[in-house]
Amino acid sequence: MSKNINRKEFLKKTTALGLGAAIYPRFKSNIKDKDKVRIGFIGTGLRGQWLLDLASKRDDVLIPAICDIDNQMIERTLKILKRNNKDTPEIYKNGDEDFINLVNRDDIDAVIVATPWEWHHPMAVAAMKSGKHVGLEVPAAITVEECWDLVNVSEQTSMECMILENVCYYRPAMALLNMVREGAFGELLHCQCGYQHDLREVKFNDGKQAYGGGVEFGEKGFSESEWRTQHSIERNGDLYPTHGVGPISAMLNINRGNKFEYLTSTATKSRGLHNYILKHGGEAHPNSNIDFKLGDIVTTVIKCYNGETIVVSHDTNNPRPYSLNFRVQGTKGIWMGDNYSIYLEDKSPKPHEWEPFDGYLQKYDHSLWKDFENDADGAGHGGIDFFIMRAFIESIKRGVKPPLDVYDAVSMSVISPLSEKSIANGSSSIEFPDFTRGAWKNNKPIFGVSDL
Amino acid sequence: MSKNINRKEFLKKTTALGLGAAIYPRFKSNIKDKDKVRIGFIGTGLRGQWLLDLASKRDDVLIPAICDIDNQMIERTLKILKRNNKDTPEIYKNGDEDFINLVNRDDIDAVIVATPWEWHHPMAVAAMKSGKHVGLEVPAAITVEECWDLVNVSEQTSMECMILENVCYYRPAMALLNMVREGAFGELLHCQCGYQHDLREVKFNDGKQAYGGGVEFGEKGFSESEWRTQHSIERNGDLYPTHGVGPISAMLNINRGNKFEYLTSTATKSRGLHNYILKHGGEAHPNSNIDFKLGDIVTTVIKCYNGETIVVSHDTNNPRPYSLNFRVQGTKGIWMGDNYSIYLEDKSPKPHEWEPFDGYLQKYDHSLWKDFENDADGAGHGGIDFFIMRAFIESIKRGVKPPLDVYDAVSMSVISPLSEKSIANGSSSIEFPDFTRGAWKNNKPIFGVSDL
Repeated sequence: MSKNINRKEFLKKTTALGLGAAIYPRFKSNIKDKDKVRIGFIGTGLRGQWLLDLASKRDDVLIPAICDIDNQMIERTLKILKRNNKDTPEIYKNGDEDFINLVNRDDIDAVIVATPWEWHHPMAVAAMKSGKHVGLEVPAAITVEECWDLVNVSEQTSMECMILENVCYYRPAMALLNMVREGAFGELLHCQCGYQHDLREVKFNDGKQAYGGGVEFGEKGFSESEWRTQHSIERNGDLYPTHGVGPISAMLNINRGNKFEYLTSTATKSRGLHNYILKHGGEAHPNSNIDFKLGDIVTTVIKCYNGETIVVSHDTNNPRPYSLNFRVQGTKGIWMGDNYSIYLEDKSPKPHEWEPFDGYLQKYDHSLWKDFENDADGAGHGGIDFFIMRAFIESIKRGVKPPLDVYDAVSMSVISPLSEKSIANGSSSIEFPDFTRGAWKNNKPIFGVSDL
Repeated sequence: MSKNINRKEFLKKTTALGLGAAIYPRFKSNIKDKDKVRIGFIGTGLRGQWLLDLASKRDDVLIPAICDIDNQMIERTLKILKRNNKDTPEIYKNGDEDFINLVNRDDIDAVIVATPWEWHHPMAVAAMKSGKHVGLEVPAAITVEECWDLVNVSEQTSMECMILENVCYYRPAMALLNMVREGAFGELLHCQCGYQHDLREVKFNDGKQAYGGGVEFGEKGFSESEWRTQHSIERNGDLYPTHGVGPISAMLNINRGNKFEYLTSTATKSRGLHNYILKHGGEAHPNSNIDFKLGDIVTTVIKCYNGETIVVSHDTNNPRPYSLNFRVQGTKGIWMGDNYSIYLEDKSPKPHEWEPFDGYLQKYDHSLWKDFENDADGAGHGGIDFFIMRAFIESIKRGVKPPLDVYDAVSMSVISPLSEKSIANGSSSIEFPDFTRGAWKNNKPIFGVSDL
């Protein structure tokens, strides 16, 4: 779904069409004995193509169907499939609702959804209700109600909704997860993370290239700018928390012995996007009149049930080096991403002084990375996309729970609407829903534990 | 005041003694034509001795009187004065109230207060009411009411209450202040700062040495541990915000065209101090039963009137390298302390990549540092103590406003009680009082502007 389509319009239509639970057969696909997983791809924009390329390189994946409404993107996708020696898939491109026909096929086991954010929830729900497991791009949903809906439908249909949060597989983060679990940091106290990425050339382009070259977006834009930029106009909150919170959630056992309790969010004024339009489009450009609601830097502080705190930063509208703002701190030491250094009491060579992290990365390298380093090479974002795709496919093949489940999907994603609410109320403290309905008390960690 | 004396007790007594405004003559000392400033020192612990050493090295300073209740500290102080060829001062050591007799002398122009935090407010108030200017160690006060009191008394008596916030003179911070004022960062959006300093060997010692060697504090401790540790038992909040917020306040023109609007604070659980006692004193040590209220890491987020945000970190109870957590970010670029790097759009050599800060420090070095580099050498904390002492003394000699005034003192210090209130109320959003009563709208920046 590369176009910025009107989802409210769609929801009205689908309600009119009676696309409720009734018309989706609630069967559970069982492919334990099969050698191949059959995946339908909804959304074949640049991210969808990338994921599809990774999937279609695998011998154990069939791709019977794809769906998008952008012909150019479909053409590119077909070339990728051909290059990877896959059969030509059936194509669903007949408007906003055609994905329903894809998810209703009986020759697919799962779908991967890589569409604009506002479509993640309805597509995942439709797929699960049709008995398909879902691999869902981040964020899983953009409202609290949508989050609950994903949980309810996953529970009702017994279909998995795995969030494709690739940064969980970031090599240093997995080494740190090993260290945390081995107690190297003692008892965890405080973590930091975030999405600090100058996205101005993602949010604006010339309508032809994906990144920069102009100040267009929406109907005149291309690729992500067609839909992503609109969120910066309409919403003020942490719009993109999962890349930071994903790895930290695993370290803090969120939903598995721990949970997010409440958060506060505080936003700066909004300057960066307007400034970019002025600089590259001039005052006369019609976009120079747009009022962006998104504060340039949004700081969220989360308190966890077990007493830890997390600072989450969202910072996408101004010049800055890329950083996921990582920090992991416990009673025995601290690691920081920005200086890529660590300090462990009684272990680091000099008291009160940082030492380089490299030696620890080697020592605590996660077994997944040791085993699949060569496969991951070149798979995108430093190899992490290989692991997230492998985990999704293998969990379906084996009929086991994926390492990131629907509760992870929503506990990470719900930060966005909660932070919007906090900011709208003068940084008031907002409680997290307990999507596990108490099961977090007994759930055991899954991410990084198995070989997925 | 090196002993952990009971301030509530004192307040009761002073009320009984009738130490109200009436007994303090409200004159304004006028020493514009004098060559020398006469300073009384209240508090001659290790910090007081250090400040007194700096002051007594100056030819333009006389020290007619000192006050403490610890004989050992007084003896050390007398040696310092002798070494610096100053006359032997009159000594006030006759109990908690003897400082009143010091401030009532008619041969001193100002006092410097370097006592336990809980004594800063009553001593500063007494001194101003006796017509003495005050150089006050940080924090200036520990409750909202005390902050108002300092403002009211300073306004009523026309006496200055300068906060001795030395980190304002940190060389990179002053260079950054120059850069901010020249527009190098564009419009400021977001800053970070804090006090991240493993103080476990300050909060605990063996009662003989100032730092470490045991797990004693209070009556059995020595130096800061005698009184500072008690705050970690009784209070949960950012206990020590001024070192971080001082320099950032100058950059953001706080009280001078801008102001703090509201804050939220979130604290982790408390582990570090208890762990330290267990590790170094054993489970049988009586201090192992103490319940420390202070969360190990306290994160405060401040929203400013002009739309900027500030993250303030307080992190003093666990192993970590020292860091003031500095970050300065605007529409044109960002500086970070932890990697000591900067990125400025269209200026840094590579897009999206940090470059070292050193060249900028040279280019934007503040004129104060250029002029007084040699004098500052060895003056403590990298030279910054020289500047804060010089500013206090010179402002009195010249009869001009000090570069950090009573409004700075309280706007920085009030973060502590407000953060305590926020934490006690589940991280609720707490408004700042406007101590300037609206004058912030028209006040002009003073710090780093003059040659003080």
